[in-house]
Parts: sequence; structure tokens; C-alpha cells
Amino acid sequence: MRNSVPFPIVISGPSGVGKTTLVDRLVASDDLLVESISTTTRVPREGEVSGVHYFFVERDVFERMKDRELVEWAEVHGMFYGTPRRFIDQELESGHDVVLNIDIQGGNSVKRAFPDAVMIFILPPSMDVLEERLRIRGDVDEAVIRRRVEAARGEITGSNNYSYLVVNDDLDRAETALRSIIEAERCRRERIHPAALKQLGK
Amino acid sequence: MRNSVPFPIVISGPSGVGKTTLVDRLVASDDLLVESISTTTRVPREGEVSGVHYFFVERDVFERMKDRELVEWAEVHGMFYGTPRRFIDQELESGHDVVLNIDIQGGNSVKRAFPDAVMIFILPPSMDVLEERLRIRGDVDEAVIRRRVEAARGEITGSNNYSYLVVNDDLDRAETALRSIIEAERCRRERIHPAALKQLGK
Repeated sequence: MRNSVPFPIVISGPSGVGKTTLVDRLVASDDLLVESISTTTRVPREGEVSGVHYFFVERDVFERMKDRELVEWAEVHGMFYGTPRRFIDQELESGHDVVLNIDIQGGNSVKRAFPDAVMIFILPPSMDVLEERLRIRGDVDEAVIRRRVEAARGEITGSNNYSYLVVNDDLDRAETALRSIIEAERCRRERIHPAALKQLGK
Repeated sequence: MRNSVPFPIVISGPSGVGKTTLVDRLVASDDLLVESISTTTRVPREGEVSGVHYFFVERDVFERMKDRELVEWAEVHGMFYGTPRRFIDQELESGHDVVLNIDIQGGNSVKRAFPDAVMIFILPPSMDVLEERLRIRGDVDEAVIRRRVEAARGEITGSNNYSYLVVNDDLDRAETALRSIIEAERCRRERIHPAALKQLGK
């Protein structure tokens, strides 16, 4: 049993900063944490399962979901991706905090839909390190790298809605910081379930 | 080197809840954390050293410090105890977060003097457990125990300025929660040193 009311956790940061690795680690080691599952119109890749990796839907279904059932959505290379509200609601209801690995625009939409969401932005130790990581990942095209580094600068500048800034200079250290933020937020007075306080005469 | 601007941490909670043990553990295992040292008019006990356990001063010195040099003070059994502002300022200046084990009235004064202070309130798992702990500690007089339990109820009710509530049902678990809160607060955007963000083009 947990004392606190479950909440969404938005994790954003520039491409190449290590978000996906960090989110995978968090979810793997915390029973009270699940990752949000996106809805998409793209075709499943080998081994991808609907309801596990994504909810795969046809274009017309996505179109109908857009305004009422998705917290946010975006088009990327002609494919649609969105965050279904129902999945989040159900997981919160069943006692799980829900982590969303999402870009800033999406993160801001989640915050509007769930004002109690925790907003965490992951920073690279420096722009040089970010550039290096993009190269190691296989982005060899100079123009692509330049564009990504510029996008990163823009994202960092636009991250004002994010309450926490975690520098990923070391994966273990960044993971510990993220885990600490989640644990700390579970202790925030406004998140403590009223029933947990009531027996103490409050 | 730390990214964040150092801050005071106020830890309060009813008598018998385990504050002192928890604060000792925190300070022993975190190089960036020191405990505030109080000024008092009481006589040093065997082994107590001025500047380590307390700053021991004469009554007339305390009287002169009261309004200008102490963040808060109180009289207990005819002895005066207070929190010197200069010690906190110096420790913050040299890069340490400063933890204060203090009652609610004192904690609220610290928050007024240092608006960026983190406020943590330690709760017993239940009033029955608190009562039991007071008995184990050697408070055998029923009237004293009744008075302490009533005081605890009052403290809990009056803890509205405290952002975090940590239930001490298990020392290790409570210690982890406190450590997480401090670590999380070090990642809060408003505490990050501007110079640390500047190089990222922000």
C-alpha cells in the first residue's frame, strides 16, 4: 500500500541525452511505476505487440481519437503518434505512477491535462558531449548533427515548465537522481492520501 | 563541485519520532550536508565542546544576540537555546546544505529567514506507535506520556508549512526518503546555479 496519490511523470530532453535508457531502468526497478503506451498509425515492426510497445491503430481511428481521447499527438514523417488519456487514467487508478518519455510540446500538453504531473528535463553535461553522443549513435551526417544540436539548444531554452533538471553526465548518477525525485514527490504533502493522515488526528 | 545553490533543510516532528537518529545518519553519509549548531546558555555536559555540540555562551551574551544574530530562540526549563544565523550563512557560503533539527515554531522562523529552506516533517506510523516509543525511551510517567502524545497531535496539525511528510515506520526507509528529498531538491530548477546552465546556451 502506498501513502501517496499516484501521479504522471514527464521526462523530456534533447535527442541523444539518454532518456530511453533512463526510463527503461526506472520502470524495471520500481513496481509502482509504469510507462505510458502511445497510440500510433505506423505499422508494427517485427516483434512489436499492440498494447505493449504501442497501441497500433488505423488512420481513421486515430483521426477520431485525436481531440477527445488523446492528451497530445504529433505527426512525424507522415505517421501519427499520440498519448491516450485512458491508459494513464487506468494506471493512476490502479496505484501506478505513469512515466512519459515525450518531447517538450507533448510534455506541456500532459501538464495541462494533469496539473499534478512531475516535470523532469534531462540535460547533457555539455553541448560537445551531446554532439559526441549523436555521432556515436550513428548520426554521421554533419547536417543532421548540426540540426539536432540546434534543436537541443531550443529545447533547453524552452524547458521552463520543467521543475527538475537532471544532468546525465553518468547513467548511474542520473538514474539515482530520477529515482530520488520520484521518491521525494511521493512524500509531498499535497500528494499524501488524506486517509493516511486522518488516523494521526489531522 | 555542485550544480545547485546550497539551502537549509528543516526537519521537525513530534518528540520520540526519531528525528535525531535520522539527522545523524544523514549528516554522517553526505559530504555536502552539515548540521546547524545551536547557541545555548546551559552549562556544557561532560565531553561537550563549544563549536561542535553547541556554542556555549553566558546569559548576557545570549540576550544581546537574541534579536539580531539568532534566526529563532526559545527558553526551555530556564535555559536559552537559539539558532545563530552566521553559522548557517557561512556553511551555505562554503557549499554545504545545512540541516536543522528543530520544533515547528523554530522551523517556521527559519523558513521566514530563509525562504528557500526545504521543510520536512517526520510522522510516526500511528499515535499508538509513538506512545510505545516514548515508553521504550523511558518516559514511564503516564501524565508525561499523555502530554507528549497531545503535543504530537498539536504539532502534526500545525505542520502546514512543511512541504514533505515522511513516515518513520522503518529507520532505513525513512532515511532513504529523506536522502531522496535532499537529492531531488538539489535538482530543482530554481536551485540550479545559473553558471551551470549558461554553457548549455540557456
